Amino acid sequence: MNTAIKQLNDFQKKINKRIDCFFKIKKKKIGLIAPSLIGFMENIQNLCKKGKRLRAAYIYFGCLAAGGEDKKNILDLCASIELIHSYFLIHDDIMDQDAVRRGMMTMHACYEQIHKKLYKNGDSAHFGESMAIIGGDMASAFGYDILAKSKLPDKIKIKILNKINSLIIDTTAGQFLDIKLEVGSNVNRHDIMTVLKYKTAKYTIEGPLHIGAIAADKNVKKNLKIFSDYAIPLGVAFQIRDDILGIFGSEEKLGKPVGSDMRENKRTILVYKAFERANGAQKKILKNCLGNNKLTKNQINDFRQVIVDTGSLDYAQKEANKLLAEALDVIKKANLAKEGKNFLIGVGEYLTRREN
Amino acid sequence: MNTAIKQLNDFQKKINKRIDCFFKIKKKKIGLIAPSLIGFMENIQNLCKKGKRLRAAYIYFGCLAAGGEDKKNILDLCASIELIHSYFLIHDDIMDQDAVRRGMMTMHACYEQIHKKLYKNGDSAHFGESMAIIGGDMASAFGYDILAKSKLPDKIKIKILNKINSLIIDTTAGQFLDIKLEVGSNVNRHDIMTVLKYKTAKYTIEGPLHIGAIAADKNVKKNLKIFSDYAIPLGVAFQIRDDILGIFGSEEKLGKPVGSDMRENKRTILVYKAFERANGAQKKILKNCLGNNKLTKNQINDFRQVIVDTGSLDYAQKEANKLLAEALDVIKKANLAKEGKNFLIGVGEYLTRREN
Repeated sequence: MNTAIKQLNDFQKKINKRIDCFFKIKKKKIGLIAPSLIGFMENIQNLCKKGKRLRAAYIYFGCLAAGGEDKKNILDLCASIELIHSYFLIHDDIMDQDAVRRGMMTMHACYEQIHKKLYKNGDSAHFGESMAIIGGDMASAFGYDILAKSKLPDKIKIKILNKINSLIIDTTAGQFLDIKLEVGSNVNRHDIMTVLKYKTAKYTIEGPLHIGAIAADKNVKKNLKIFSDYAIPLGVAFQIRDDILGIFGSEEKLGKPVGSDMRENKRTILVYKAFERANGAQKKILKNCLGNNKLTKNQINDFRQVIVDTGSLDYAQKEANKLLAEALDVIKKANLAKEGKNFLIGVGEYLTRREN
Repeated sequence: MNTAIKQLNDFQKKINKRIDCFFKIKKKKIGLIAPSLIGFMENIQNLCKKGKRLRAAYIYFGCLAAGGEDKKNILDLCASIELIHSYFLIHDDIMDQDAVRRGMMTMHACYEQIHKKLYKNGDSAHFGESMAIIGGDMASAFGYDILAKSKLPDKIKIKILNKINSLIIDTTAGQFLDIKLEVGSNVNRHDIMTVLKYKTAKYTIEGPLHIGAIAADKNVKKNLKIFSDYAIPLGVAFQIRDDILGIFGSEEKLGKPVGSDMRENKRTILVYKAFERANGAQKKILKNCLGNNKLTKNQINDFRQVIVDTGSLDYAQKEANKLLAEALDVIKKANLAKEGKNFLIGVGEYLTRREN
């Protein structure tokens, strides 16, 4: 097994324990307002349970790579980012109208079911969405709450607060542009790359690494630069891999129905490239699938075939490999502490080759 | 004119200038990611323009009452809370399915229209909701951003961050309970009072006053207690007045369609009391109106008549007056600085007697 994956697995145990501890305390406290809130928080907690903890790990190992040594308090920042990540996932699932995430019912789908079973007044789907909007909002405040209560120096906490804010602003900007891409008809490469950069590379990799560098509080300016030079190409490569899996992955591995990305009309580099190179018949296949809510198994297979036949898959894989090499080169040359550095190299390779 | 209203009007000019300045800088910066984001931010800004600035004023005058003197930097906290308030309003409007707020189109309604005009792919209503979810999320990060960048000492900023987090957690908890009330059939007085306390009294009055007391940084513990003893009864009185206006106010004064609260099946003390005292025919009228999307003018008038005839209106008015007297008594006896104290007294009277 890749050493970084072992590091990630060991880290997951620590961070999961920290998050469970947070929820245990919060449920006790907020449950005093009304007992029904405990179930609501458990719903947020469940959604938060199954993640890869990638963003948290980037904070942790980024901090170690940048010379940080306070392994205990840094865990608070890791828990904070995971709660904020849950916030985005809960809201994203509403926007994407996904009923399944990580093999589990999404929050809005879950409350839609609860409404159907228990209540007579109002619309079930709208009730589900409302509960998930509030659930996301509460998860966001939980994320900020862990940061505010951590034992790091106030000066560092304020710097990290600034970083988290700009992370959220960038991510919402990326999400706004992404949704515009989905409904629009004119899509260009520049717009797709902007979404990749803001919604994935900055949010998943650069932002967490920057938080780690700020928490380490050593050569901060220099480390921020190194981490950006690694994060942006790797993040784009990671998203390209994600988009490939979104089209070619199985439901079991994806944890969501096959074809979701096509149904949502997700505009990716793969789709862009395929359109650029497709002939008339191939374009028709692409258009018939994108945004189609009643996609059949045959249509999905035809769509996949066009992505292969136009050379779009090959192009995307090569692009991802090139960007990965660029990112790894930056880190290998950088003067960073060993444990963190090894993780950054290993996880980069894993992210762009993973199957789920 | 009530002196407090003059104080509020003068304050509104200052805070509006501060918020405009924030948006000017932010639009310039975020517009660099993609120009289309400027329009998106203008939408958030417009929604944020027309408020009474009540929460901001409570921070400001609370701080002055508690002996604070830094009138300039406290304005940042006021702007921060107004952005967070916009965040809640944007999300609330989705949940309440309101198309109009403060006489303007709500964010989701606005983007629904934009979709209808400009885009062919996807569902217009869902597009509107998605944009408003993101818009709220961005407004929230803006609120935290102003706090993080303010020139107050880091120690104070962290304390205020903690307060804002617990404010948001309490408010989302209140909102969760409120939505459950709307769909449920068994409503009791305790549940209604919990919603009033968490969704209104703590959020609108106690939380902002506490932020002011923390920023003033003098006799904090004592002042927090005084402010709570004033805020909770006044907040409940304010919400009762709001609920009365929600049933008896005109569209012009409310800035939203007459009957919205009935359509949403909003469970208020007024409705609770009316049910408690109604005879069979009156109960039928209440039930026919609550949650009814196709409410006629006659039905609204009949509903109003039941609220009057059962004595529910009279009961609610008396309850609000009693709570107001309790709140004013606390402040009048308290040792607080004059400018702030006068505002707290005057605005209390205004809030429970206002017509819009």
